[in-house]
Amino acid sequence: MQTTTTQTELLVKMTITAWDVQNNQFHKLLNELTDEQLYKQIAPGKNRGIYLLGHLIAVSDAVLPLLDFSELLFPELQAVFIKNPDNPAQEMPSITTLKENLQAVNAKLNEHIKATTAAQWLERHTAITPEAFINEPHRNKLNVIISRTNHMANHLGQLLLLK
Amino acid sequence: MQTTTTQTELLVKMTITAWDVQNNQFHKLLNELTDEQLYKQIAPGKNRGIYLLGHLIAVSDAVLPLLDFSELLFPELQAVFIKNPDNPAQEMPSITTLKENLQAVNAKLNEHIKATTAAQWLERHTAITPEAFINEPHRNKLNVIISRTNHMANHLGQLLLLK
Repeated sequence: MQTTTTQTELLVKMTITAWDVQNNQFHKLLNELTDEQLYKQIAPGKNRGIYLLGHLIAVSDAVLPLLDFSELLFPELQAVFIKNPDNPAQEMPSITTLKENLQAVNAKLNEHIKATTAAQWLERHTAITPEAFINEPHRNKLNVIISRTNHMANHLGQLLLLK
Repeated sequence: MQTTTTQTELLVKMTITAWDVQNNQFHKLLNELTDEQLYKQIAPGKNRGIYLLGHLIAVSDAVLPLLDFSELLFPELQAVFIKNPDNPAQEMPSITTLKENLQAVNAKLNEHIKATTAAQWLERHTAITPEAFINEPHRNKLNVIISRTNHMANHLGQLLLLK
């Protein structure tokens, strides 16, 4: 039997690796798609690539305060890419700017992810109270990574259709 | 500090719950889509819904031997839905049959998932040798669930476009 630390560290590492895999695939796909492709809809009548790009950045950015890592880096993205659906009449940052935003969010996230210990991953995130967390210990920081990994996989499957 | 068992059990539970969430969304989506919709392409020139349905069943079925739970329930699906790309000229089971296959695979998987202890989730899967597993302990049974969860999320994002 392994020690507590070793087993927990292994399970945390597996989860963070799965998150990294999705982020690396996202990065790779962005390098393969032209701006013209990103301005197209993923399917007739559905979201455009640029909207999903902005959406994934905004969702990753929102992980920063949720995990108590930092404030939002780009709060202006929340309204355009999360609170509202895609709208070609809506002014949006350029794809070049969005890609820079993505790099900045990922750099900040990675800095904090690397500095977080296995024990800290099992602590509560900021959207649950200490009282509620006593009975719902699964609502910890690592669970945010699990849910955001699946969310990213969901939209990456759609962005792949632009190729 | 929690005991080894409690921490490991919590992390295993979080991972299995994420898998269940994707499967429940898949099931819900299948109940919402008509057979006519499932015979359509998710986007022009891309896979049809029926192919992705069969693909997800075949991939889940292949988890059974990989986790040493049982043999494949529907070995004939592997060639059509994994080894080969979508092809409208290829004979395929009806959607009714595929949905029955899905229920059978999920029932068998759930039976074994429920019976697997936290310690057993950290054992090697059948595609890695005991020798290699010593240095790569992350290649355990739980990691198969993590990767298949993300795989399903990826294709669910695509199937959602049929709505």
